[in-house]
Amino acid sequence: MTKKIGAQTIQFETPPFIISTGCVVGKKEGEGPLGSYFDQIVEDEYCGEKSWESAESKLQTMAFQKTLNKHGLRNQDIDYMFAGDLLNQCVGTHYGTRDTNIPFFGIFGACSTMVEGLSLSSIMIDGGFAVNVAALTSSHFCSAEKQFRFPLEYGGQRTPTSQWTVTGSGCAIVSKNGPGPKITHATVGKIVDMGINDANNMGSAMAPAAFDTIITHFNDTGRDASYYDLVITGDLGITGSDILHDLFKKETGGSELNNHKDCGVLIFDAEKQDVHSGGSGCACCASVFCGYLYNQLTTGKLSKILLVATGALMNTMTLQQGETIPSIAHAVAIEM
Amino acid sequence: MTKKIGAQTIQFETPPFIISTGCVVGKKEGEGPLGSYFDQIVEDEYCGEKSWESAESKLQTMAFQKTLNKHGLRNQDIDYMFAGDLLNQCVGTHYGTRDTNIPFFGIFGACSTMVEGLSLSSIMIDGGFAVNVAALTSSHFCSAEKQFRFPLEYGGQRTPTSQWTVTGSGCAIVSKNGPGPKITHATVGKIVDMGINDANNMGSAMAPAAFDTIITHFNDTGRDASYYDLVITGDLGITGSDILHDLFKKETGGSELNNHKDCGVLIFDAEKQDVHSGGSGCACCASVFCGYLYNQLTTGKLSKILLVATGALMNTMTLQQGETIPSIAHAVAIEM
Repeated sequence: MTKKIGAQTIQFETPPFIISTGCVVGKKEGEGPLGSYFDQIVEDEYCGEKSWESAESKLQTMAFQKTLNKHGLRNQDIDYMFAGDLLNQCVGTHYGTRDTNIPFFGIFGACSTMVEGLSLSSIMIDGGFAVNVAALTSSHFCSAEKQFRFPLEYGGQRTPTSQWTVTGSGCAIVSKNGPGPKITHATVGKIVDMGINDANNMGSAMAPAAFDTIITHFNDTGRDASYYDLVITGDLGITGSDILHDLFKKETGGSELNNHKDCGVLIFDAEKQDVHSGGSGCACCASVFCGYLYNQLTTGKLSKILLVATGALMNTMTLQQGETIPSIAHAVAIEM
Repeated sequence: MTKKIGAQTIQFETPPFIISTGCVVGKKEGEGPLGSYFDQIVEDEYCGEKSWESAESKLQTMAFQKTLNKHGLRNQDIDYMFAGDLLNQCVGTHYGTRDTNIPFFGIFGACSTMVEGLSLSSIMIDGGFAVNVAALTSSHFCSAEKQFRFPLEYGGQRTPTSQWTVTGSGCAIVSKNGPGPKITHATVGKIVDMGINDANNMGSAMAPAAFDTIITHFNDTGRDASYYDLVITGDLGITGSDILHDLFKKETGGSELNNHKDCGVLIFDAEKQDVHSGGSGCACCASVFCGYLYNQLTTGKLSKILLVATGALMNTMTLQQGETIPSIAHAVAIEM
């Protein structure tokens, strides 16, 4: 007997609490519809550093510190940290956390990193291995464009399906002791690859992974979307969200996926802010959860959510070599 | 109360078993001193694929399958998989495992990945979350040189402190039920950065991290090196091993680090095989553990080992930007 129910879901015996969150974002994110929910808005895209990569590391350092401060915690109160990001060899994380002196597990889940971190943090608590565990991630529009697409100076035109990488960082402390919203279940994703090979259409590549994890979560728990106030995906954007709805309808014989929203759609005003299909990047799900959603949970505006972060697991070279985009989605069920 | 003892060490309540391992290596590794311990030696550096990156993925697929086959396991018997590698965005892993249909956690620990995976797999078992968990990693000399150093066609001269990335993959299944060697403790590393910035001298960058984790393990458990038949580091190579010994002597008032060997020193005959300071890469520790060390444990030639895998957490860009190399070392104590 294990705490696994169904195919891929962990049901926590003593659900751990999310006792504190923190998030720092860039100027554009601050100007979006959720601007008032972020802890800090950094106007300078360099964050006072010399490179965009160092700026991204700085965002992690700031988000982590804010999360600790809000709850009066010190570094030595944190037993373990799970963190990662999208930069090659996850350097945003390694330079951003190297001075914390906290036992560290590096994770890579692309834009699913925040929920992978929340899942593993919960496992550490419910398994009896720790009292406080930190989950942390970041992304930066400039470091991501430079690494994955074109030099910013080139000024290339963006395709309608492209998404805008969120500049920011989010951190959450998962703890044995409350108060705070509880993580009751984690549905661990499988890699899904449906043959999409367009790096400017990540939403379409990730939608089947989101669908797979959501439907598996429902099957494993005997729930459906009506159980939740919100089924919130990480960064499918407008295009990917449409595909998720179509897939859901097709595979369930016509049912609608009710109560669904997407962090990538919420974080920007797509039309006014010219972000095409919406936001993306590890910090998209992370900042929307650690800012807006955590606020909605702790103020009683939401009481049950399914947070589903999606990640695209290719790199620029594999696409040049003709490969398709493997994707993954991890979900956690959170209740007040 | 948690299962954490001291600063960074987990003492497993019901130590999980390593029930099966598998490893596949390249031609040069097969010609080295440990050649007879590897399950398969692939003569073709492309493994029948069209690129070195695809070849690395293929090595993971092969190592995983061998590990299952040896124990008569099927994919559906594996509850979760922890895997990662050194390629940008860990693509060796994502393409190598995308068809397994197993709930997947991506990890990034550079060359410490194998032990990070063994630690997290053990946590899943001892925490009551799973029955069988797979830990998997890989590296490939050609894909690593191309990504981290120079085009192979350039034929650059290698510095005396440089190490040779092992071509191969190793996999281990950690299980609730034996028989097999047991993982009794995991000491989770912290990021350590002592200011080294030479990508051709990784051993020196990683040695302080190895020292930190080993001394912390001894302090946390009340043990010293004499408790173990072997304290085996992942890939410090000759240069890094010397530094580890010097650090140990200096910081302990003159004591020797007894019973120490290094996978990077063991896997090649440095002089005859022209590998300078020894082997490196995620597959160095993985293939030496899954091949040679697992054999020594199960045949009674070793009964207690401390396996300490080290990772360098920079990328090529951060070094060009003048940064130093943050490093980490994770350790597991394994007993027959």
